Amino acid sequence: MHRYFMGIDLGGTLIKLAAIDVSTDPPALGEVLRASTPAGNAEGIVATMIKAGRDVLDRLGATKPEELAGVGIGAPGPLDRHAGVIVNAPNLPELSGMPLRDRIGQGLHLPAVLENDANAAAWGEHLFGAGRGVKSVVLLTLGTGVGGGIVADGRLVHGTHGFAGELGHMIIHPGGLPCTCGQAGCLEQYASAANIARRAAAAIHQGRKSVLSTLLEERGGLSAADVNDARGRGDALAGEIWDDATYSLAVACVNLQRLLDCQMIILAGGLTRAGEDLLGPIRRHYAELNWRMTDVPAQIVLAALEDDTGVYGAAGVAWKEIDREHGER
Amino acid sequence: MHRYFMGIDLGGTLIKLAAIDVSTDPPALGEVLRASTPAGNAEGIVATMIKAGRDVLDRLGATKPEELAGVGIGAPGPLDRHAGVIVNAPNLPELSGMPLRDRIGQGLHLPAVLENDANAAAWGEHLFGAGRGVKSVVLLTLGTGVGGGIVADGRLVHGTHGFAGELGHMIIHPGGLPCTCGQAGCLEQYASAANIARRAAAAIHQGRKSVLSTLLEERGGLSAADVNDARGRGDALAGEIWDDATYSLAVACVNLQRLLDCQMIILAGGLTRAGEDLLGPIRRHYAELNWRMTDVPAQIVLAALEDDTGVYGAAGVAWKEIDREHGER
Repeated sequence: MHRYFMGIDLGGTLIKLAAIDVSTDPPALGEVLRASTPAGNAEGIVATMIKAGRDVLDRLGATKPEELAGVGIGAPGPLDRHAGVIVNAPNLPELSGMPLRDRIGQGLHLPAVLENDANAAAWGEHLFGAGRGVKSVVLLTLGTGVGGGIVADGRLVHGTHGFAGELGHMIIHPGGLPCTCGQAGCLEQYASAANIARRAAAAIHQGRKSVLSTLLEERGGLSAADVNDARGRGDALAGEIWDDATYSLAVACVNLQRLLDCQMIILAGGLTRAGEDLLGPIRRHYAELNWRMTDVPAQIVLAALEDDTGVYGAAGVAWKEIDREHGER
Repeated sequence: MHRYFMGIDLGGTLIKLAAIDVSTDPPALGEVLRASTPAGNAEGIVATMIKAGRDVLDRLGATKPEELAGVGIGAPGPLDRHAGVIVNAPNLPELSGMPLRDRIGQGLHLPAVLENDANAAAWGEHLFGAGRGVKSVVLLTLGTGVGGGIVADGRLVHGTHGFAGELGHMIIHPGGLPCTCGQAGCLEQYASAANIARRAAAAIHQGRKSVLSTLLEERGGLSAADVNDARGRGDALAGEIWDDATYSLAVACVNLQRLLDCQMIILAGGLTRAGEDLLGPIRRHYAELNWRMTDVPAQIVLAALEDDTGVYGAAGVAWKEIDREHGER
């Protein structure tokens, strides 16, 4: 008999859905279905999730209701996991206070679980991706912001209020760049794709010479890929900013390793499209910074499931919560 | 019926032993027995632990063998918890390779568990001390070095090789003071009792003026208590070094809070004898540094069991491992 769990990854622009079949080992990962997020319309978002969810279930061709075991929803936080409610999602403010778990569960007639999207992604890489079979794994997501999730000794770490894994707001440079969170010197200020681009633009506006000036003037803005490209062409400013980013990430990796003795640190998010240009310098800085007490460095690798880490992870969270024997032991 | 677990805390100068009775809620913590560590003599250390352990068991007056449930040993690491062997203890090199768990277990005719001493101390404060009833707790030990242990969501974090919780070797000041571990800018360089004293002495030797110069000349060395005392008398150098220590600890607390969403950070070790002189500045720096995203700061408090955190924690580790239902759920 098949046994399916569905995952839904709710993002600001896209809703992704997929089912996994846990009756095989490893579980079979189904095709990902995508729907546009009707932003600004809370009821529309719920309706879209339920309609697309039914489509996914229909396509499975499950003949017995007991084959459909549950649904996991990964959503931007902060959220109240126990109550199943989104508390305050900066990118989807219309969902604040929405009892998303119960609405989706009732709509799909399935037991439902709500989890922070970055935690779901970490769990996805741990179950199905680069971290398969690795008990202590940290996922760092490098996109507009920097976030992540921690799997310690085979368990997703939630913390007191479910806010664990705010990896972007580790203070890496005390007294450094002010952060939107109110702290200063946070990892996110140095290593998010958006801030890499923003720092380059700000320096050019302040008079620094760079091959990026023309592009900035033409387009009115820059991307992290532009900065990496200019770095590759020998631009000094771009090189400094890229080095700041990879050095700061390496310090974060050392600290994660010291605290958690993780075997693997997995990088995900838009910035990882730079591939070896990102991974190489992080690994070099990490090797230089890291201690020589014991020879147990963490592997630093790219996520294997790419953009689908979150949706499969959400299904995996439901599997863990509903089939306890596959979960937290 | 009583149900006793014994704890043994193996230190470089003292072996401490105590039994806990888990048949009551909360468990009753028995008197702590102390024996000198016969340093340099591996067999002597094992014999002392077994002899003193038998004394503790005899004093319990347990009439049924099943009342004596197990023994937990907290020992300096690195150690192989699964094999029950000390791998390499810098302060007790004669014990390297010693199968301590099985030797003590056989000697006392009890199921035995070996745990890193800082992890045992963290578990002790979580079960019996300042962190009672708190599921996410970090213990920071501030002594000759800086160490600690992490309890996340009610579970002791071990990591891939059992090296989790090396809190003293978080890099707080990238490119900062070189550390004996090979890194630079580690917390331990700024915040251990030994390094606070050493930094003051080094600065005076380099010509800095301080009320501590006379004391340093007379005694040939300083203590962290001397530095705090001079700070209290308005000495600028001592004030700077003390502020560096408490600021660095506050940065570490912010980062622990961001990663683990811990409800409480507990400080233990010799430096905490400074009491409010230590706690006050750490809390002030923490409040200034911490984010304003959500109002969920960690409480920063002193350990409640003081020097006996480790021995009761070792007993608690045995309780957790042997009576699984009180342990990792």
